[in-house]
Amino acid sequence: MMEPCDLLIHSAAQVVTCAGPPGPRRGAAMRELGIISDGAVAIRGTTIIAVGPSAELRRRFHPAREINARGRAVCPGLVDCHTHIVYAGDRVAEFEQRCAGATYQEIMAAGGGILRTMRLTRAATTAELVEATLPRLQQMLRLGTTTAEVKTGYGLARDAELRQLAAIGLLAAAQPVELVPTFLPAHAVPPEFAGRADAYIDLVIEEMLPLARDWYRVSSFAARSIPLFADVFCERGAFDVAQSRRVLAAAQALGFSLKAHVDEFAELGGLAMALELGATSVDHLDVTNPVMFPALAVSATVAVLLPLVSLNLGLSHFAAARQMIDAGVAVALSTDANPGSAPSLSLPLTMAIACRYMRMLPAEALLATTVNAAHAIGLGGRVGAIMPGMQADLLVLTEADYRWLMYELGGSPVERVIKRGQVVVGESE
Amino acid sequence: MMEPCDLLIHSAAQVVTCAGPPGPRRGAAMRELGIISDGAVAIRGTTIIAVGPSAELRRRFHPAREINARGRAVCPGLVDCHTHIVYAGDRVAEFEQRCAGATYQEIMAAGGGILRTMRLTRAATTAELVEATLPRLQQMLRLGTTTAEVKTGYGLARDAELRQLAAIGLLAAAQPVELVPTFLPAHAVPPEFAGRADAYIDLVIEEMLPLARDWYRVSSFAARSIPLFADVFCERGAFDVAQSRRVLAAAQALGFSLKAHVDEFAELGGLAMALELGATSVDHLDVTNPVMFPALAVSATVAVLLPLVSLNLGLSHFAAARQMIDAGVAVALSTDANPGSAPSLSLPLTMAIACRYMRMLPAEALLATTVNAAHAIGLGGRVGAIMPGMQADLLVLTEADYRWLMYELGGSPVERVIKRGQVVVGESE
Ligand SMILES: [Zn+2]
Ligand SMILES: [Zn+2]
Repeated sequence: MMEPCDLLIHSAAQVVTCAGPPGPRRGAAMRELGIISDGAVAIRGTTIIAVGPSAELRRRFHPAREINARGRAVCPGLVDCHTHIVYAGDRVAEFEQRCAGATYQEIMAAGGGILRTMRLTRAATTAELVEATLPRLQQMLRLGTTTAEVKTGYGLARDAELRQLAAIGLLAAAQPVELVPTFLPAHAVPPEFAGRADAYIDLVIEEMLPLARDWYRVSSFAARSIPLFADVFCERGAFDVAQSRRVLAAAQALGFSLKAHVDEFAELGGLAMALELGATSVDHLDVTNPVMFPALAVSATVAVLLPLVSLNLGLSHFAAARQMIDAGVAVALSTDANPGSAPSLSLPLTMAIACRYMRMLPAEALLATTVNAAHAIGLGGRVGAIMPGMQADLLVLTEADYRWLMYELGGSPVERVIKRGQVVVGESE
Repeated sequence: MMEPCDLLIHSAAQVVTCAGPPGPRRGAAMRELGIISDGAVAIRGTTIIAVGPSAELRRRFHPAREINARGRAVCPGLVDCHTHIVYAGDRVAEFEQRCAGATYQEIMAAGGGILRTMRLTRAATTAELVEATLPRLQQMLRLGTTTAEVKTGYGLARDAELRQLAAIGLLAAAQPVELVPTFLPAHAVPPEFAGRADAYIDLVIEEMLPLARDWYRVSSFAARSIPLFADVFCERGAFDVAQSRRVLAAAQALGFSLKAHVDEFAELGGLAMALELGATSVDHLDVTNPVMFPALAVSATVAVLLPLVSLNLGLSHFAAARQMIDAGVAVALSTDANPGSAPSLSLPLTMAIACRYMRMLPAEALLATTVNAAHAIGLGGRVGAIMPGMQADLLVLTEADYRWLMYELGGSPVERVIKRGQVVVGESE
């Protein structure tokens, strides 16, 4: 007696399940992909109900629809766990200035940098922010991203930050990429508070965090148990450790989950603070002293590394992913997509650079953009792996081997994208 | 009285003409793009007949068809002047070995490297080579490449090299990217000639070059005045300067135009030899001593730089493009697309990396993949610029500013591709 299912994807050269025990993946387990040769995946509604050899699943299921993967590889939909994609304008003129050797200080003095994006974002309506961001999400989807965290942080004022949150809410309903909102009003000190960062932190804590929490409570995110994160940019020229701690502790008291930008340019101590508060992720870690790796390894916190920032700046220094993984740190990778320091929407390129400049293995890079990236945004039990009970988010690649995702530079070996059981890129057959 | 034309592309925020005097572009002239704001391009048959402001051309022409570029940028179709895309198999397993720290010697000992590709390519029929290469050309086209040089060099034996040539001929007829053939039997010393490189050079000179010349004479390339190039890999472990000179001089006597791979890992003196023979291009130049730059600058030879090779190897050393341009060298950029050292088909990524790691300006990068790349393959008078009389090869970008081609990492800001007057990617409207 055959069981019904809505969709059966079969005849994949590899089904790269990324299946494993609960929790983020560490150490040698970051090389275990659980690949099933000549594999198949059965889906009912939005959920994976079975994974196994094609022959077995074709005997067991009577599917309403099927996709013949024709010897291609199938892997989980990718998770981009750190993005700043809701903004107005671009920074293409500033990019040329940097090519010509201008320093960040010179660019800021010429009206560029984050404050340019802030001005344009503040001037945009919610609808304009949605319109500007939609093509970015469409491109991410074509590149294989099925779930993305999205931060505010270009408003840097109460109403503008709340408009960014509202835009994230509208975008989540308008297109297939599943979004996880992060509130980041403490991304930079706004010009109105120059030299008075503490006063801005007061405003963030007293007014902005509570309003964001209120927005979330009635949002579709809360209804779907998608967490709301609070984040802070702990860096020289932005917020120091004490200020960062004030923001995160206040957010935690209001029920936010926590993230922190730490150790991008200077190691101020934000990492220890974020670990102490039990942050879900700590992000950047470009200049982290390796003596911190054991503390990271024994924590439940995911280390989110962002190699495209180094690439975009033309640096030869990259975060110490190899040492971190060998020390047992749960490493995730993300684009950091933003108009200034990482104008890229591509997780395949992120993985390709991590393999080449951070000495990550292809399997580690894939787990870092699936299982571990899902844990970095609190969705570890729901997305990032092809296992019964997980959401049916998967990719059919153009090639038979998943390693093409990292091997090829600048292309997109994604043929089909399936999100919550629906084909959203490519033929539905 | 309005003039007829077949296609009018109008309302482009920028028409980036890349127009200028004949010959490759050098020095400060590498920054002059000849941008027309709110521009238009009129096309008759396969040829550009006028370029100018939209208002002027819309008054002057009565087009059979028109494309409203709706404020996007228009630029010349890109020219990839150094590729090795006709091969069988891939090197994805070897890529993983390199991530794990294996040396090239270890990979060769394990049956990988160029000899793996040689074995698979030798075993492939012409039809199989065509089938394997077609998707690569389709992806190149989507990324904006409208003309590409393609080398043999994975046969390394008479019949297998000629099959690669035959495949290039069939591919030229089968899809829109215009191809320029390069015969490279001296790409590596084949295993049958291990330790007897000179004997292989004898075979190349006595048998292979004349057969390639005979193939060319009756090919569609000769009929369309597209040149046939001969190339050699002058490098430690491949061919020394004397051997390289023998190949190139013999080829020149048979009527081939010349190219040479020089100074990738070791500076053997191949550059001076190639300049002496009047090579159309010299390629790689990663370790060239700057004392050679004046000689390059006063020659007619184009320097083809291949930054994705350094990127793929995870290096921090890149060719000295900035110094070369400042010294008056005509610099072109190319992917070097090949399964081992540059698994990439993306000229946008090539430009993006050149801007970040070679300190090239966006304008220089664009001229290096249009005008100068066209000169590197002997088609400088025909493609690479939007000027009356040039072939109608152009791109409509997704953005208003051409610098998005270099600014964005890993995406493809190409909306439409027009090749010889026909829309071959995107809506034809
Ligand atoms: Zn960030
Ligand atoms: Zn080459």
